[in-house]
Amino acid sequence: MVREVTAECLCIGDELLIGQTINSNAAWMGQELGLEGIRPVLARVVGDSEERIMEALATVQADIVLITGGLGPTKDDITKHTLCKFFHTELVRNAEVEERVVGLWTRMGRGADQVKDADRTQAMLPAGCTVLPNLLGTASGMWFEKDGRVYVSMPGVPYEMQGLMRHEVLPRLRARFQPPVIIHRTVNTTGMGETMLAERLEHWENDLGGRGIHLAYLPSPGQVKLRLSKYAGEDRKKAEAVIAEEAEKLYGLIPELIFSEGGQQLEDVVGQGLKELGQTLALAESCTGGYLSHLVTSVPGSSAYYIGGVVSYANAVKMEELGIPSDMLELNGAVSGPVAERMAEGVKKALKSDWAIATTGIAGPGGGTPEKPVGTVWIAVAGPDGVKASKGVFMGTRDLVIRRAAVAALNMLRRRIQKVPAIGKADK
Amino acid sequence: MVREVTAECLCIGDELLIGQTINSNAAWMGQELGLEGIRPVLARVVGDSEERIMEALATVQADIVLITGGLGPTKDDITKHTLCKFFHTELVRNAEVEERVVGLWTRMGRGADQVKDADRTQAMLPAGCTVLPNLLGTASGMWFEKDGRVYVSMPGVPYEMQGLMRHEVLPRLRARFQPPVIIHRTVNTTGMGETMLAERLEHWENDLGGRGIHLAYLPSPGQVKLRLSKYAGEDRKKAEAVIAEEAEKLYGLIPELIFSEGGQQLEDVVGQGLKELGQTLALAESCTGGYLSHLVTSVPGSSAYYIGGVVSYANAVKMEELGIPSDMLELNGAVSGPVAERMAEGVKKALKSDWAIATTGIAGPGGGTPEKPVGTVWIAVAGPDGVKASKGVFMGTRDLVIRRAAVAALNMLRRRIQKVPAIGKADK
Repeated sequence: MVREVTAECLCIGDELLIGQTINSNAAWMGQELGLEGIRPVLARVVGDSEERIMEALATVQADIVLITGGLGPTKDDITKHTLCKFFHTELVRNAEVEERVVGLWTRMGRGADQVKDADRTQAMLPAGCTVLPNLLGTASGMWFEKDGRVYVSMPGVPYEMQGLMRHEVLPRLRARFQPPVIIHRTVNTTGMGETMLAERLEHWENDLGGRGIHLAYLPSPGQVKLRLSKYAGEDRKKAEAVIAEEAEKLYGLIPELIFSEGGQQLEDVVGQGLKELGQTLALAESCTGGYLSHLVTSVPGSSAYYIGGVVSYANAVKMEELGIPSDMLELNGAVSGPVAERMAEGVKKALKSDWAIATTGIAGPGGGTPEKPVGTVWIAVAGPDGVKASKGVFMGTRDLVIRRAAVAALNMLRRRIQKVPAIGKADK
Repeated sequence: MVREVTAECLCIGDELLIGQTINSNAAWMGQELGLEGIRPVLARVVGDSEERIMEALATVQADIVLITGGLGPTKDDITKHTLCKFFHTELVRNAEVEERVVGLWTRMGRGADQVKDADRTQAMLPAGCTVLPNLLGTASGMWFEKDGRVYVSMPGVPYEMQGLMRHEVLPRLRARFQPPVIIHRTVNTTGMGETMLAERLEHWENDLGGRGIHLAYLPSPGQVKLRLSKYAGEDRKKAEAVIAEEAEKLYGLIPELIFSEGGQQLEDVVGQGLKELGQTLALAESCTGGYLSHLVTSVPGSSAYYIGGVVSYANAVKMEELGIPSDMLELNGAVSGPVAERMAEGVKKALKSDWAIATTGIAGPGGGTPEKPVGTVWIAVAGPDGVKASKGVFMGTRDLVIRRAAVAALNMLRRRIQKVPAIGKADK
């Protein structure tokens, strides 16, 4: 058996301990380590205290320690000094880092002479460590080795840490430890909750263990990712083939729920579909309040197919901008299928797009009625082949209702674009 | 000086280590402990492994250990057995708990004879521990004492753990340790990065230690929270007065940067300001793509002041919906002050609002030029007192540029509503 490579996450920061910030870094790192075949065995959080950090460093047992936090330029950031103490070294000025930090500020419109001392301290780094360039901030990553163990220190700001992990740390860990290769395949689904999905996949899932495949359900609002993992062993090609075979069975079982694989988001799939068709999109949002538009425009290059949208929070906007007759609002109420359809048609016509999505509903916490409880959302999609609305009732807080409704709306458009049968059709 | 009472959180579960679940329990417990004056000094996550759990229990240094997870009835839940091993005791049937677990199932519509063996195992609890009744589930809480330390084991399901903490654990900890009270006050700022802020506050910060106050900088995109903490000691009122005095100095130093305290977000402040004035808001977004509208509508009850908005991604939308002359777009380019101002005025007029914000910029990663690099965003605010645009250059990924620009835009509106002097005015 291949020797297991183990890792520990050591997150530094009073704000994590006192619960002002939830430690999402440890979870993110744990997931990435798992994908590399490295086993996370411990995650620790300690405060901004030299004594606590020293103690934690001295009691590490894993092959790898990923340290985050405490690298800012302010007084309560003491990780760098503590690392110097632990590794019996001292801070020295790194000209390259200084130049980059100064450059960062200069690009923001300040002269080099205006760059503050505090930022120059970001160029002071422990002698003897390998400096890992952080392209998204002023705190560099640091790589130490001691007694066969690797210690990596990174900033606690999630996107800076993630950038360093992707571009510097993970490739280096791979080269340094050559962990056993794990083959992963992640199939992204929407339209069915985790529990029902697990029930539907029960028989298929029961057989996976015998083939050396581990299945993980990774739920997020409105979606469930299914990750198949298998140790590659000696024969990578064979392992990939086994995974491919099971993935194909999965596609046969829930064809109408799968929208992509890997990191491709629903908004990416919709964007790609529109690009391929050479068609455009417009949005009319009420209860989703701009979140749907935010999702669509989170895709780089979305201006190629997204024309724009209207957020109609007041009924007056619905009437004037989208041409909804006031008697329709009175007759059906703003949260209704006819209004959603007219909103979609109205914005499609006004912005001269090929497709349009409209949402109208009750995100809560107030505004619900027994007939239309909080979470009730009407979604309409208008396209070259006509307009159709459908109702969903989404659970959870205001934020969750908005997120789930936006995912459902994008998925309705995706199915229309891809001409996928409606949910349940493939279910015998 | 009062003796500090310390606590450690020990969270058990493979799903936490591999990042399938983010560990929100530790943050929640840390927050509650802090409010009780108990200092969280360490949070650990270990997997479902007897060896790892034993090792963690054996190395506890704090006065209190709050253990979560691993109390379910399935095979991979081993916490109870491991606790028996650690405390040299054994599982015994607890008739009271058995009755409650059976009662729970019965209320769910099953007969007592149908209650599964697996659930009856939930009534098997370590001899010698104090059983803490869990009214929300089948896994009881357990309270152990050994060598002056308290060990509490609770289920990992957040609401069950929270119920046990509130009704059983925290009152018992209070009675057992009579911890010192800590006073916290968090002041929220925007408009200046952590580094410059620290420099500006340097003299004030240097004096805080002497007054027994700890200051923490808590940055997030576009914002920095400043948290002041102090032990109340014998005289809670006096400690609160000391904190209040320093907070007042802080307000004097950076009046134009502070927008709220505690959990009140920028969008809450803006909403409250508009409500008080009885005025309304409309938005015209280009580069922020709906995110600004999403922030505004994330506030429950925002329909009282938010009329709606336009997301103008294509130039045609800018021209038609917002009445931007095409020669203005050609002359200045879409990313310019005049266009931002016309967008704001256009949407204000079209939606008949008192205030309007417009954004136009380059969120990236493509589309930048040497003159207008990625991150360049023009923001305009139109109001009863006229329209004014200003330019920002925001760093980071597409997502960060969008988030930072949205925060800056909300803050521009806040300053206009509150008639706060522009940034820098209060500087010296």
